[in-house]
Amino acid sequence: MTSLAPLSRAACIGGGVIGGGWIARFLLAGIDVKVFDPHPEAQRIVGEVLANAERAYGLLTNAPLLPRGRLTFCASLREAVTDAEWIQESVPERLDLKRRVLGEIDAAAPADALIGSSTSGLLPSDLQAELTHPERLFVAHPYNPVYLLPLVEIVGGTATAPATIERAKAVLDAIGMKGVVIAREIEAFVGDRLLEALWREALWLIKDDICDVETLDDVIRYSFGLRWAQMGLFQTYRIAGGEAGMRHFLAQFGPCLKWPWTKLTDVVDLDDALVEKIGAQSDAQAAGLSIRELERIRDENLVGIVQALKAGRGGEGWGAGKLLADFEQRLLAQASPPETPDLSAPLALVETRVSPAWIDYNGHMTEHRYLQVFGDTTDALLRLIGVDLAYVEAGHSYYTVETHIRHLDEAKLGEELRSTCQIVAADEKRIHVFHRLFAGAPAREVATAEQMLLHVDTKAGRAAPAPGTVLARLRPIVDAHARLDVPPEAGRSIGRKREPVIA
Amino acid sequence: MTSLAPLSRAACIGGGVIGGGWIARFLLAGIDVKVFDPHPEAQRIVGEVLANAERAYGLLTNAPLLPRGRLTFCASLREAVTDAEWIQESVPERLDLKRRVLGEIDAAAPADALIGSSTSGLLPSDLQAELTHPERLFVAHPYNPVYLLPLVEIVGGTATAPATIERAKAVLDAIGMKGVVIAREIEAFVGDRLLEALWREALWLIKDDICDVETLDDVIRYSFGLRWAQMGLFQTYRIAGGEAGMRHFLAQFGPCLKWPWTKLTDVVDLDDALVEKIGAQSDAQAAGLSIRELERIRDENLVGIVQALKAGRGGEGWGAGKLLADFEQRLLAQASPPETPDLSAPLALVETRVSPAWIDYNGHMTEHRYLQVFGDTTDALLRLIGVDLAYVEAGHSYYTVETHIRHLDEAKLGEELRSTCQIVAADEKRIHVFHRLFAGAPAREVATAEQMLLHVDTKAGRAAPAPGTVLARLRPIVDAHARLDVPPEAGRSIGRKREPVIA
Repeated sequence: MTSLAPLSRAACIGGGVIGGGWIARFLLAGIDVKVFDPHPEAQRIVGEVLANAERAYGLLTNAPLLPRGRLTFCASLREAVTDAEWIQESVPERLDLKRRVLGEIDAAAPADALIGSSTSGLLPSDLQAELTHPERLFVAHPYNPVYLLPLVEIVGGTATAPATIERAKAVLDAIGMKGVVIAREIEAFVGDRLLEALWREALWLIKDDICDVETLDDVIRYSFGLRWAQMGLFQTYRIAGGEAGMRHFLAQFGPCLKWPWTKLTDVVDLDDALVEKIGAQSDAQAAGLSIRELERIRDENLVGIVQALKAGRGGEGWGAGKLLADFEQRLLAQASPPETPDLSAPLALVETRVSPAWIDYNGHMTEHRYLQVFGDTTDALLRLIGVDLAYVEAGHSYYTVETHIRHLDEAKLGEELRSTCQIVAADEKRIHVFHRLFAGAPAREVATAEQMLLHVDTKAGRAAPAPGTVLARLRPIVDAHARLDVPPEAGRSIGRKREPVIA
Repeated sequence: MTSLAPLSRAACIGGGVIGGGWIARFLLAGIDVKVFDPHPEAQRIVGEVLANAERAYGLLTNAPLLPRGRLTFCASLREAVTDAEWIQESVPERLDLKRRVLGEIDAAAPADALIGSSTSGLLPSDLQAELTHPERLFVAHPYNPVYLLPLVEIVGGTATAPATIERAKAVLDAIGMKGVVIAREIEAFVGDRLLEALWREALWLIKDDICDVETLDDVIRYSFGLRWAQMGLFQTYRIAGGEAGMRHFLAQFGPCLKWPWTKLTDVVDLDDALVEKIGAQSDAQAAGLSIRELERIRDENLVGIVQALKAGRGGEGWGAGKLLADFEQRLLAQASPPETPDLSAPLALVETRVSPAWIDYNGHMTEHRYLQVFGDTTDALLRLIGVDLAYVEAGHSYYTVETHIRHLDEAKLGEELRSTCQIVAADEKRIHVFHRLFAGAPAREVATAEQMLLHVDTKAGRAAPAPGTVLARLRPIVDAHARLDVPPEAGRSIGRKREPVIA
């Protein structure tokens, strides 16, 4: 399989921040992408978004990503869309412009290709009015940064076919995004309606000097922002209602709606003075951090939050974290072990990068994260011999019974990590492995880990011989590795030769 | 020191969900709390909130918490406030009731005691109008769950003294909360203004069948909710504006305010039909999860998100995570090592609990988390001999050079963990330790870790003898432990005796 989705060729018309995000999402799911954007700097801008996206994906997941799709910049819209299965339009937010561009796409694309518009507010019925095949036009409204935020609002117009909505949702779900179908079209859909309401109120608060922009942001990020990353508005209030439930909460909270709080529903005049006030306060808030630095901080935080949610609900995953876990499962399921791994050397099993969450206050990778990467290395070996999730769920697994780690050097934030595994010995129940971890380029050996793995019947809770299917895949590796030198560091113990004696 | 804050006695009038949250915050910061709440079930409700808070704190931080303050339920308001330094009022949201209760507090409390009101919308000027000492009355508006969300909006009325606001902020900051001063009083302050605007829009979207409550929540939690947990509205938009900056963004986005999107600023009629519609959709969304289950999921997610943010900005911490990191620093700084640790047995150094983020898909603690707890154990030993953060920042530290872990049993979600440390040997440069980890009650030994630590000059990047001050604190432990039996498992290596040979 070359792509995770039921399609292998996409086209992106418009390659700005949003278009670039779509390009990254498609490429990283193994889909080839043709791009048309007449902007003279389109290639540079797309390249920057792609670099951000690849860095973020590298931090987000250790799952085996598919080979990236092929990226082609085209000289014409026609060339870009002519054999595409999904065309995503991300041109500036003007109805006349979008209609013209969508008309050109409609004329040049295969009749059954899906056409998604990234509009954040225009009605799909208005966008599709003049198309020959309006039934395959829909809104697919993503959120910035598109390569990390999973949401896509899917909105159909009057002429959109139900099958179009279903196909669009299936593709988005397959590439790890969260396609949410909005029942009825409405200007600005759901997300931007909510944002707009809050934004309007926020502008009044700044204009009237109730607070400055930093205070307002702090109010959000130290309180309901933390709630909303995991649950939304209604589920949060359901809890607030307590055992009495949602209806009770509404009865309690409802009256506030008629309080004088609602007076600020007028539209604020965003005049020069207010723009300058907000601009100056925002400069102060940024405290010298550049947009690039803020962007990197934001992305690393998003990675950390999603990874935290992946551990939610007792390890099952919750919200955006559950979505990531499911995506990784699909990546793992499609990752067929290499047909003929190179057995003439230790196996190269894990490639990853030092995540920001792995760093201690010294700027070095924290001790236990070395073991995390070695654990991933062992998991990769086990997948190679057929011990995958299905195998574990069926009631057998290998458990680590002993680990000996030697630290040789420090790995630093963002450095590439690469691990190798040599099988020192094995029998029906045990595998004795020796891993090495390398960081940076040129690579430095930063640590080794020797482990003894024991095959167990997890239900009975005791050691058991591995089945023939597993041993048959294990044996060729063991035989080949028997021809390698035993690592001179294997079998060592701590502190025997020159036991320290305090002075 | 018995409290982290510049006060040691607080009173809480009203002990519901919000009052209970305040009680937990004070107690866990080492402050004694007297409570008055005439509700017949007040003790049960406060007890439940406290149990949630202690569980959440246990997961949130391994920093050495202060001994809990003393909790006393009083038979009268007068008894509760008579010697309090901070009185927090959390009675139902009715102006007449709050005025009466605040009047009683004002009459019975010391004249210089701070009086905070938890009101989420009433004006402090209205609350303080009839007080004898109105200058010490302010709004301290927290967010649910109060024991985990750090925000408190501090709002003064016309009669509030500036010194009151300063004192209130200092106390909140000291106990790990985030006191944010709102410049001018306004009904609903800043947070609930923003929430109210979004809530109003949300009710329209449900009423008009644009989407259901689950879809609306998904729109939030898969997109801007993830952004807002770390940055707020304006900082997020600053990034969206790109290098052109905030003023450019406003120029681009401003016009939307006058689009038809703004038509939904009327107040929705929250009639029986709409209440029932939302109630039914909310039931469907909860999918059988009880309020207690949702509450636990929410709290564990909040813990995970805040811990992820603690690793933000390359390990410096960001937003609510930076706040936690700073709080932990203060806890560590005030935690004086025990005067006379018991040297007749291995040192008991770490007590913690299996955090939800530590669990793998089997429901067991993940391999590398064992090393995390052993690393914390080593850190605790090092603090005991004077190797603390200041020591490390001055350019010296102990690095782990080798670790040998043996897994004996599995630790499960939520189980209490306890570790011990025995020094096997030491010299001027090295410490050889043997840790044991116990889980649950009665305790089972689940793992051991043997480590060799090396004293280093971190700037020069090489081993160096530890200074006399450190050796002087190390030596008595080494001497005492020399009288203990050497752990029989120490000095072992992996797979030497019966090396497996594949069948």
